[in-house]
Amino acid sequence: MFLNHTITALTGMTSPLFPSPLLATVEAENSPIVLTGVLLSLVIIYLASKIGAEIAKRLDFPPVLGELVAGVIVGVSALHLIIFPESGLSASDSVVMTILEWINHLSPAAATSIFESQSEVISVLAELGVIILLFEIGLESDLRQLKEVGYQATIVACVGVAVPFAAGTVGLMTLFHVPAIPAIFAGAALTATSIGITSKVLSELGQLKSKEGQIIVGAAVIDDVLGIIVLAVVASLAKTGEIDVTNVIYLIVSATAFLIGSILLGGIFNKTFERIVNQLKTRGNIVIPAFIFAYFMAFLGNAIHLEAILGAFAAGLVLDESDARNELDELVKPVADLVVPIFFVTVGARADLGVLNPTVPENRAGLSIAVFLMVVAIVGKIVTGWSVFGQPGINRLAIGVGMIPRGEVGLVFAGIGSASGVLSKPLEVSIIIMVILTTFLAPPFLRLAFGEPVEPPSTGEPAREQPVLGGESQPTP
Amino acid sequence: MFLNHTITALTGMTSPLFPSPLLATVEAENSPIVLTGVLLSLVIIYLASKIGAEIAKRLDFPPVLGELVAGVIVGVSALHLIIFPESGLSASDSVVMTILEWINHLSPAAATSIFESQSEVISVLAELGVIILLFEIGLESDLRQLKEVGYQATIVACVGVAVPFAAGTVGLMTLFHVPAIPAIFAGAALTATSIGITSKVLSELGQLKSKEGQIIVGAAVIDDVLGIIVLAVVASLAKTGEIDVTNVIYLIVSATAFLIGSILLGGIFNKTFERIVNQLKTRGNIVIPAFIFAYFMAFLGNAIHLEAILGAFAAGLVLDESDARNELDELVKPVADLVVPIFFVTVGARADLGVLNPTVPENRAGLSIAVFLMVVAIVGKIVTGWSVFGQPGINRLAIGVGMIPRGEVGLVFAGIGSASGVLSKPLEVSIIIMVILTTFLAPPFLRLAFGEPVEPPSTGEPAREQPVLGGESQPTP
Repeated sequence: MFLNHTITALTGMTSPLFPSPLLATVEAENSPIVLTGVLLSLVIIYLASKIGAEIAKRLDFPPVLGELVAGVIVGVSALHLIIFPESGLSASDSVVMTILEWINHLSPAAATSIFESQSEVISVLAELGVIILLFEIGLESDLRQLKEVGYQATIVACVGVAVPFAAGTVGLMTLFHVPAIPAIFAGAALTATSIGITSKVLSELGQLKSKEGQIIVGAAVIDDVLGIIVLAVVASLAKTGEIDVTNVIYLIVSATAFLIGSILLGGIFNKTFERIVNQLKTRGNIVIPAFIFAYFMAFLGNAIHLEAILGAFAAGLVLDESDARNELDELVKPVADLVVPIFFVTVGARADLGVLNPTVPENRAGLSIAVFLMVVAIVGKIVTGWSVFGQPGINRLAIGVGMIPRGEVGLVFAGIGSASGVLSKPLEVSIIIMVILTTFLAPPFLRLAFGEPVEPPSTGEPAREQPVLGGESQPTP
Repeated sequence: MFLNHTITALTGMTSPLFPSPLLATVEAENSPIVLTGVLLSLVIIYLASKIGAEIAKRLDFPPVLGELVAGVIVGVSALHLIIFPESGLSASDSVVMTILEWINHLSPAAATSIFESQSEVISVLAELGVIILLFEIGLESDLRQLKEVGYQATIVACVGVAVPFAAGTVGLMTLFHVPAIPAIFAGAALTATSIGITSKVLSELGQLKSKEGQIIVGAAVIDDVLGIIVLAVVASLAKTGEIDVTNVIYLIVSATAFLIGSILLGGIFNKTFERIVNQLKTRGNIVIPAFIFAYFMAFLGNAIHLEAILGAFAAGLVLDESDARNELDELVKPVADLVVPIFFVTVGARADLGVLNPTVPENRAGLSIAVFLMVVAIVGKIVTGWSVFGQPGINRLAIGVGMIPRGEVGLVFAGIGSASGVLSKPLEVSIIIMVILTTFLAPPFLRLAFGEPVEPPSTGEPAREQPVLGGESQPTP
């Protein structure tokens, strides 16, 4: 079928994939090689994710930690198998590209273009991975229970944004004599929780449907929205020295309207979804309508300058209420199994552990600030557990620990701060270290905070109450 | 999580997705918008595929025909929702890009870059679609039965390459006074069968495992290899006027070694696969190893200048022999349901029906040649059914009809021919028309040739013998 590969190899002529009026571009000529690169990258990502997850499982860590670490090993910090042009690396640094060049005798220009295209494809697949993950988390979450814990989740989210922000900003100004604006920026980088990592670990521990799990997920979603708003404030502060009030109000209103609106409309759409599914007679009658909805909501989330994953999560919550949900759960599982690991491995692959190297002077200056930020990042989220009210016997430590991972959000802050010249290099490095360590420490911490899983994950109903604090005896597995 | 979107909107600053050393490229800055475009394109593709398939089903046509036609409607020929830069169109022609520009206030340069990136992503997803389709077809095919019909399939393939090639070349030279080299080129464009379309229709008719179905699939695979070899010959002929014998021998040897080698090694790998699957304890324990194998074989097929889909088909054949096959079938289904439609809709979307417009002088000149090529294309493949020996009562018409669709292969020929200046515009147009019409006519023809499906597709064992020719009575459903 797609003979272009051969064509390019044989003739060196332009040969688009499906050339209707036959105006081939460079992109089109390279596209079979891009496919080769994507296939090889996926093989590496899957091998890494499976080996990492299995080793982690055997060492009694959450599998997702293994995927992250495996990502680090194949990524920019070590083997250079999966790297991205954003890290300032070029095609010649990539082992995959070296293999492709060896197979296809590419020119440097073609290699650069192919490297960028295949990195773009892997990036989008990773983003589809986290979208599908949040869709699945939405399907596994219980809207009624989420509503029940809504107040607690909101308070946890607000405390978890306010405490690290205040403590981080004030601490940097007083202890490290950092000027106000960079201190505010770094404080803001301490706020938002990485919902992807937390929810995946919860799911692996079978704790997603526990009261603690639902509070964490709810709070992480709200956190994400708060993070966007904090970012809008801080970014306009860094750019103009003033706060763009209109934009902040727009974000608050649109986020609230989006989440509440999608849940309200969801009640109506549910019935429509079931009617549509029952009418369809061709293959994919459940999975395609479900993904149309999920992708459309993700598109909408992105389009109104919120986030794709919020839309996907809302779509999952809505469809969780439909009668087709059990069948849908089963169908989404293999899809998620194939796409979600791409996200976690690339998160690991993108984390440059080089910033931990103390022989680089900039890193040394950053390391002491990093220690401070780490303490604030961990303590500032752990205290949120004690802001939960009216839930006697709840595992407060687990809730706090669940909010710890910062993931990419913090790195985005560091990125803007650095690009706008607000952050000094040591401060930027210390934010990156804080993000990497909270991301990697949260899975084992969360595992410890919840104690032994009562039932294996992904089968049956997980345990609701499983106190490790407060002196109650633990249920035996 | 991915706040870049907001960042770009708010600050206009560079904001890579996960900016480790924070060297942002234009690609990275645009990547959340690329994701928005991909999500919107996928929503459109899924809507089109489902609506098309359901209407086709209700009109008693194969659903895949509906997906192709729906693709034409959303594609370059009509609505311009899903278009590709290869067709010479720019971002401003794309409705998806117009929506993105309206949401994000993009500069023309950014729009072009985003248009190319998101088209590249959709193209790769479509190619992954046909790879997964062929993997699934391999899983559904029976290696033993394929071996049994191996001789017949080889003969059908050879006849199906030789007859249209000879008739096309000679006819063009004698009837239309086309010079030898362009005539050979056009004749070559008549050879290769589109295995994707044929196998999908067979699967939908529940005929994939019938003797006819297995002969068609086997012949289409061999056809594909022969097509690569014919292309190598014709391309070097067009380029240098001579045939590159070394390359032709390399292709023949590598193709044979690849297919036979993978089947022989498969017997060993089967046991290893089962052992690995049984050892794995984390999610995706079957599906990830299976896709590692499928993608690796696809990569290998591409890397040795054969085809990715041949590798995926071989991987499917091998795993079909393993004990985990039933479970694997169930797991691959939803994945295929989500990715395969992207292939068929984009095939339709890329087909420019503008070449059928008789008011354009070039098209008029092409139309009479096109009629001739169509006749050769159809008759030249239908006769192959009568080259099958030792199979009394077999549905010869169905076999011949199954070889009719040319799909992208013919377009690739037209593309190279045009790029190298060998083909005149009318000849090129006539090849494109021939490809489009054989692709669209084959599904209903195949449906007619097989008569009514005995059982609904995808469940149970399909009927083996179902003659419509030869006077035998048909088994009642």
